[in-house]
Amino acid sequence: MALVVQKYGGSSVANAESIKRVAKRIAESRRAGNDVVVVVSAMGDTTDELIDLAQQITPLPPQREMDILLTAGERISMSLLAMAITNLGVKAKSFTGQQAGVITDAVHGKARIVDVVPHRIRETLEKGQVAIVAGFQGVTKNTNDVTTLGRGGSDTTAVALAAGLGADVCEIYTDVDGVFTADPRIVPAARKIDRITYEEMLEMAASGAKVLALRCVEYGRRYGVPIHVRSSFASREGTLVTANSHVTHTVHDDLHVPVAVWDRIPGTLTVPDNHEAATEETAMEDPIISGVAHDRSEAKITVVGVPDVPGVAARIFEVVATSGVNIDMIVQNVSAARTGLTDISFTLPEGDAKAASSALSAVKDELRYDSLQIDDQIGKLSLVGAGMKSHPGISAKLFGALRDADINIEMISTSEIRISVVTREDALDDAVRAVHSAFELDGDGEAVVYAGTGR
Amino acid sequence: MALVVQKYGGSSVANAESIKRVAKRIAESRRAGNDVVVVVSAMGDTTDELIDLAQQITPLPPQREMDILLTAGERISMSLLAMAITNLGVKAKSFTGQQAGVITDAVHGKARIVDVVPHRIRETLEKGQVAIVAGFQGVTKNTNDVTTLGRGGSDTTAVALAAGLGADVCEIYTDVDGVFTADPRIVPAARKIDRITYEEMLEMAASGAKVLALRCVEYGRRYGVPIHVRSSFASREGTLVTANSHVTHTVHDDLHVPVAVWDRIPGTLTVPDNHEAATEETAMEDPIISGVAHDRSEAKITVVGVPDVPGVAARIFEVVATSGVNIDMIVQNVSAARTGLTDISFTLPEGDAKAASSALSAVKDELRYDSLQIDDQIGKLSLVGAGMKSHPGISAKLFGALRDADINIEMISTSEIRISVVTREDALDDAVRAVHSAFELDGDGEAVVYAGTGR
Repeated sequence: MALVVQKYGGSSVANAESIKRVAKRIAESRRAGNDVVVVVSAMGDTTDELIDLAQQITPLPPQREMDILLTAGERISMSLLAMAITNLGVKAKSFTGQQAGVITDAVHGKARIVDVVPHRIRETLEKGQVAIVAGFQGVTKNTNDVTTLGRGGSDTTAVALAAGLGADVCEIYTDVDGVFTADPRIVPAARKIDRITYEEMLEMAASGAKVLALRCVEYGRRYGVPIHVRSSFASREGTLVTANSHVTHTVHDDLHVPVAVWDRIPGTLTVPDNHEAATEETAMEDPIISGVAHDRSEAKITVVGVPDVPGVAARIFEVVATSGVNIDMIVQNVSAARTGLTDISFTLPEGDAKAASSALSAVKDELRYDSLQIDDQIGKLSLVGAGMKSHPGISAKLFGALRDADINIEMISTSEIRISVVTREDALDDAVRAVHSAFELDGDGEAVVYAGTGR
Repeated sequence: MALVVQKYGGSSVANAESIKRVAKRIAESRRAGNDVVVVVSAMGDTTDELIDLAQQITPLPPQREMDILLTAGERISMSLLAMAITNLGVKAKSFTGQQAGVITDAVHGKARIVDVVPHRIRETLEKGQVAIVAGFQGVTKNTNDVTTLGRGGSDTTAVALAAGLGADVCEIYTDVDGVFTADPRIVPAARKIDRITYEEMLEMAASGAKVLALRCVEYGRRYGVPIHVRSSFASREGTLVTANSHVTHTVHDDLHVPVAVWDRIPGTLTVPDNHEAATEETAMEDPIISGVAHDRSEAKITVVGVPDVPGVAARIFEVVATSGVNIDMIVQNVSAARTGLTDISFTLPEGDAKAASSALSAVKDELRYDSLQIDDQIGKLSLVGAGMKSHPGISAKLFGALRDADINIEMISTSEIRISVVTREDALDDAVRAVHSAFELDGDGEAVVYAGTGR
């Protein structure tokens, strides 16, 4: 008996068969007594097909019209899903972003949710019906214009609705089992993370982990919505993202928490060695490291031979900011060989490199630098874990692991719970594997316990 | 300088190329100084594809969800059309039925428009922009639910908007040149009708002419909206549907009326023989007959051997009406051979024949008839013309033409401006040709004048 918001992505509703499969899962959750709100994305490749249609018309479609076009995708998936659920004997109604009360600002293509007024969703739940809501879309308050939320939009719709409705949990269904300690395609021994804090998940997402959108996690943290990332193709537990990785949340029945897992294995009363200790000294349960994220989508720009006088760095980043580019890491090296000159490097999304370099070229005379170097062959590795702030020597261990693997570090940046390094792009996979091993994140069969529960 | 509502059907916007072509036409009309509102249907086969998707999910989709699903089609076409127009340097914005203020009742799948509140369309026109409106859809007043208008929905949206905005003309663009004196596939000599009254057009539409939906013509007549049916593939005049077939309406420049046509042919000042006479005696200009419509979609039910006592016919049609079936023509014959008994025949849509015969079978004991005959091999021919009410001998001429062509008449019904006869279905084409010839409707090259203007 809980209020559950479930979100299904495009790959979970790619065709009539998968829509029926998802409908069955939703109907089961409703029949188990839960109040169920479902947020759904457009079917499979629909969005890409619509973008392609627009490209056939014009290379520069007005963003307002793009939003109207793209929202047709969710309209199709949400009504089909409502039909499929109704066909199973469970009443369901679909709602557009506007009908669901998802109010946004007027920035077409990447609108931000400013309010959620889900009157109609509440009414629908009170009648015992399932409410299906179009993800990725909203409506402007004053002009009643259709907007889309941009990347990660449907995840954000789901968390925002969960917050607005005071839901017990927001389940994000995807095509992987949850959040992993590293990308399993690179590190086959990567383990699914059972629980992770918002802060760690934010660092993971910001560092390139694609399973949850950054803004969705931010929204969840701000409103304290537990987010459960799990597979729509299996019934086992995924990863629970909450404020505290070791507190047992009272969430709905389908959501058993790790501590309770042992109770569910028939014929065993074995309690893990550290169980008692964990109860007394909860910090011990905190994993020091959550995982290793990586990102190949950035480029590095180096401004070579800048006069080493006050205000130059400020001016450089002012110019870059004015061109609408967000930068990530910054490193400044004093060049010993050329007195009075320095090199400033920074990383930024690859797609923004051209805009940033044009902006800097335009002020070359003013800044009096020697040259610009653009390097799009870099990779970034990030080690994330709330535990690292109280454990010294983490960075030494990280750098040691990379040295042992013969991998050169080009840039370093750190936060309270993250260390990121930039390497050559072709060394990135080796780097991820080396670090994953060094911090003993490699799987030890624990995942089998989950698979073995058969849920 | 006029306010023009243009409606483009699915075949006119079937792909990116045709959307660009239509956009060009709209941009030209705007550049000529007109205020332009465009109503658009879904692209080509989109609606059928969406229906097919729903059928893959469930054989009986809830109608509310079907409406949400189907309205995705217009969302796609309207946004693409707005993009295409904008790409030509003319500002355009698209609006859903809800945004355009098309308010309907709550009968999903065949909603009726109850109000049009086009504030946003007016604002858009005042800014000099083209407003694109999704056809076929509206929104319920209180619950804000999406509805569709059913068959002929986009035509009706266009005429309703034209009425709500006080437009000078509503142009219905289609894949034929206008309304013809008969179906050109049956009568190759059929001529395009230049002007026709609402009443005649209503009779034509009700008698099987498919070019304009009945409800759209009804709406046009009620609010006095001139409807111009024309081809989206050519620029020549189509058919103008108005209150009076010989009054010159002050419509926009693109809409020259027949009287003015002669002025436009360079090098000729020839005035047709009856021009002067027509000015003094306008009734002379009224064509006696507008055209010949036909319909193969009906069936005939005969209730054989009904006791010829008062109240029996009333009871029969009461029973049929209760089964939700609309009947068309009724004939009662007194059977001389069997005193006290009579046969009652009526026509109805073929698809309703089963429901009506079941309803009648259920009361066989009460009505004491001998048997039911169902005949779906009938055809209906209708001769329509406002002139016929003042011209005696029209029906005699019609029956004579059919007799000369050796075609048997099974049923007859008449209105002030229409005579309909039922024949064998396989004799229908011959019947249409014979009547078309007898009333001298066959083309005499007049259509060439229009083609020759090259507009």
